[in-house]
Amino acid sequence: MTGLGGSRSRVSRVVVTPVAFADPPLLNVVGVHQPWALRAVVEVHTDDGLLGLGETYGDETQLGRLQAVAARLGGHDPYDLTGLRRLVAQVLAAGDGGAGMSFGGMLDVDSALETVYSPFEVACLDVQARRAGVPVSDLLGGRVRDRVDFAGYLFYKWAAHPGHEPDAWGEALDADGIVAQARRMVDGWGFTSLKLKGGVFAPEVECEAVEALRAAFPDHPLRLDPNGGWTPATSVKVAERLAGVVEYLEDPTPGIPGMAEVARRTDLPLATNMCVIAMEHLPPAIAADAVQVVLSDHHLWGGLRRSALLAGICETFGLGLSMHSNSHLGISLAAMVHLAASSENLTYACDTHYPWKTQDLLVPGVLEFRDGAVDVPTGPGLGVELDRDKLAVLHEQWVTCGVRRREDTVYMRSIEPGFEVNTSRW
Amino acid sequence: MTGLGGSRSRVSRVVVTPVAFADPPLLNVVGVHQPWALRAVVEVHTDDGLLGLGETYGDETQLGRLQAVAARLGGHDPYDLTGLRRLVAQVLAAGDGGAGMSFGGMLDVDSALETVYSPFEVACLDVQARRAGVPVSDLLGGRVRDRVDFAGYLFYKWAAHPGHEPDAWGEALDADGIVAQARRMVDGWGFTSLKLKGGVFAPEVECEAVEALRAAFPDHPLRLDPNGGWTPATSVKVAERLAGVVEYLEDPTPGIPGMAEVARRTDLPLATNMCVIAMEHLPPAIAADAVQVVLSDHHLWGGLRRSALLAGICETFGLGLSMHSNSHLGISLAAMVHLAASSENLTYACDTHYPWKTQDLLVPGVLEFRDGAVDVPTGPGLGVELDRDKLAVLHEQWVTCGVRRREDTVYMRSIEPGFEVNTSRW
Repeated sequence: MTGLGGSRSRVSRVVVTPVAFADPPLLNVVGVHQPWALRAVVEVHTDDGLLGLGETYGDETQLGRLQAVAARLGGHDPYDLTGLRRLVAQVLAAGDGGAGMSFGGMLDVDSALETVYSPFEVACLDVQARRAGVPVSDLLGGRVRDRVDFAGYLFYKWAAHPGHEPDAWGEALDADGIVAQARRMVDGWGFTSLKLKGGVFAPEVECEAVEALRAAFPDHPLRLDPNGGWTPATSVKVAERLAGVVEYLEDPTPGIPGMAEVARRTDLPLATNMCVIAMEHLPPAIAADAVQVVLSDHHLWGGLRRSALLAGICETFGLGLSMHSNSHLGISLAAMVHLAASSENLTYACDTHYPWKTQDLLVPGVLEFRDGAVDVPTGPGLGVELDRDKLAVLHEQWVTCGVRRREDTVYMRSIEPGFEVNTSRW
Repeated sequence: MTGLGGSRSRVSRVVVTPVAFADPPLLNVVGVHQPWALRAVVEVHTDDGLLGLGETYGDETQLGRLQAVAARLGGHDPYDLTGLRRLVAQVLAAGDGGAGMSFGGMLDVDSALETVYSPFEVACLDVQARRAGVPVSDLLGGRVRDRVDFAGYLFYKWAAHPGHEPDAWGEALDADGIVAQARRMVDGWGFTSLKLKGGVFAPEVECEAVEALRAAFPDHPLRLDPNGGWTPATSVKVAERLAGVVEYLEDPTPGIPGMAEVARRTDLPLATNMCVIAMEHLPPAIAADAVQVVLSDHHLWGGLRRSALLAGICETFGLGLSMHSNSHLGISLAAMVHLAASSENLTYACDTHYPWKTQDLLVPGVLEFRDGAVDVPTGPGLGVELDRDKLAVLHEQWVTCGVRRREDTVYMRSIEPGFEVNTSRW
């Protein structure tokens, strides 16, 4: 063999499919998950018969932008990622220009560039890797681990969305409920780390839940993430109480100055997916020594290669690296696994919402949880394949579900009219 | 086409060939170039008939380490770059462990890891790109420019090495000589930027040469690099004198604290290839705001992917990016061109010693200078091919030349016994 010679793949067709899948009533600092979670599936087809896949947020603003990029991508060279990024920037500049990404009210990003670019980048890397006959992790420097550990992601939750049938998980509104949920997570998926989404109840209540988890799972690394629900002073008190109990506190308080204040007053590592969510946040956060662990997220940080850049920056500046998750399907999980597999300094178990969904859109068999970890696919590309019947079902759900944006607070207020977001509440 | 399926390339054979080529008596802060410049050529052959090339420093310490890695590389997957880096670290740990890299006394690196890893990484990327039928620049995110600009690299020099025939360049020991040399560089290669290696004469003498260049070449961006020959106070005076004349001052004074002191007192950008030459130097340099431009060098920074990481860090932290050169041959030039072609924020013309050599080891026709720039090779891999007859000639020169380390000061003292290095002299 002497390689593929000088032939080039060109993008021949791009398909963006909005999908919706049932999501339980998971509570957080700004409200509660809506009954349907939205995603968009990006297919990049090439003139030499390759297909690359990407998955991203599916709110209507994002969909419009994805469609606008897709319409311009014919003839593009899937290796020209810088050109792809420039194209996305041009498309966004020609539109409304704002960010407008819908993160349920929890995140602000200055530009939609990274979020819109990301699924196309992943799909192009899928094409590149399939062309070369190697897994995507090989394009990121090679696999440093054969299995990627994930953390069981625990949520306070209602038994059911109002007016819907109860889901299989039941209610979890106190420490006992959280421990029972964790038990189900650990029994079903084998997770060896656990993360509790907080910011729902007063900090002492959530500390009790974490302490109950510690008693029930003495060897599981634990995390608590109130999404900025506390003041710096409260954060310091929680850090004192949970020192030696959690491996890190995630976003106890909002903003780099607040996190820096907490960091000065505790040795407990502080992690973030809120105050450092773009490259431009790194210099001020590093200068202020505000965070000790950054959660990467290729959907938010502009794809797998820029997430690898983030990993390199974390390594260079002595920051820990973990991985964030929003509600997602299998294409995203595959991309997360390839990224984590090739990130040597990603030493924490990754977050995932994966157990909370009941449907997916892949041919099964590749991404299985065993002992809380997923084997890194070794086939070409992302190593996963669309099941078009399942894709059709999830798309039909999108058509009929009526949800078009993630609006945790709006939905919560439709149930509890007086609800106020808990950011910096305690 | 559906790609290459699941087949894998494996390293079948690795050849490390030391070579020497004639080098003129170029003067610098620590002495003078020896009559022979040393390089090592790394060939990585795979069991499916691919060949990847790398080039690096050729001093005997480096050669021993390259050979030790080569002996362990059989069966390695050329996509497993993290594993390759780990292997190099293991080989170095099993040896003397020190850095010991020979940079003519100008640079200190804490570890030989990056310099030993680099040529193998480049060769593996060459294999990967050949396998996929794409240029190496495509593996780095794609070409953002079709031509890479280089700067004409001017040196004070003698007419000849003592006891040797004069070279074609003639003497350059004053402003007139430098302008004549620049004229030859510009006429022969078309350079549109010029860099003067200083640190040889008093700063006012070197400023006169720069000002003579400005008069002779009114539109050429200019640079001056005394390799740390000055004190911070002198550096500030030179910066005042050359403000508006040079685009940056490179390493006017040694060390991050000294550079930071100068930077506080001038608006002229300071560049470095001396105080920031490894990832661990970035955090203190950034914290001190010591430099405004970093010169990357894939030989020194651990290959093309880590140089791309450096580029990303520079972009993130608002640092300029340029490119450093040591005496080198065409394989290095090809790698530099692919890296520069894919680095969007590399906005300065790259340094190169290329015009100073009279021999190379490639099949000609790919890397030609036109208007001071080199067309980015578009063929698979690095796009260059070894000429084995020429390689044999350069290797024979290595066998017979007697030089085994770069020792600019030792060589200078063999001619001028009282020579002292000029670091921080003025």
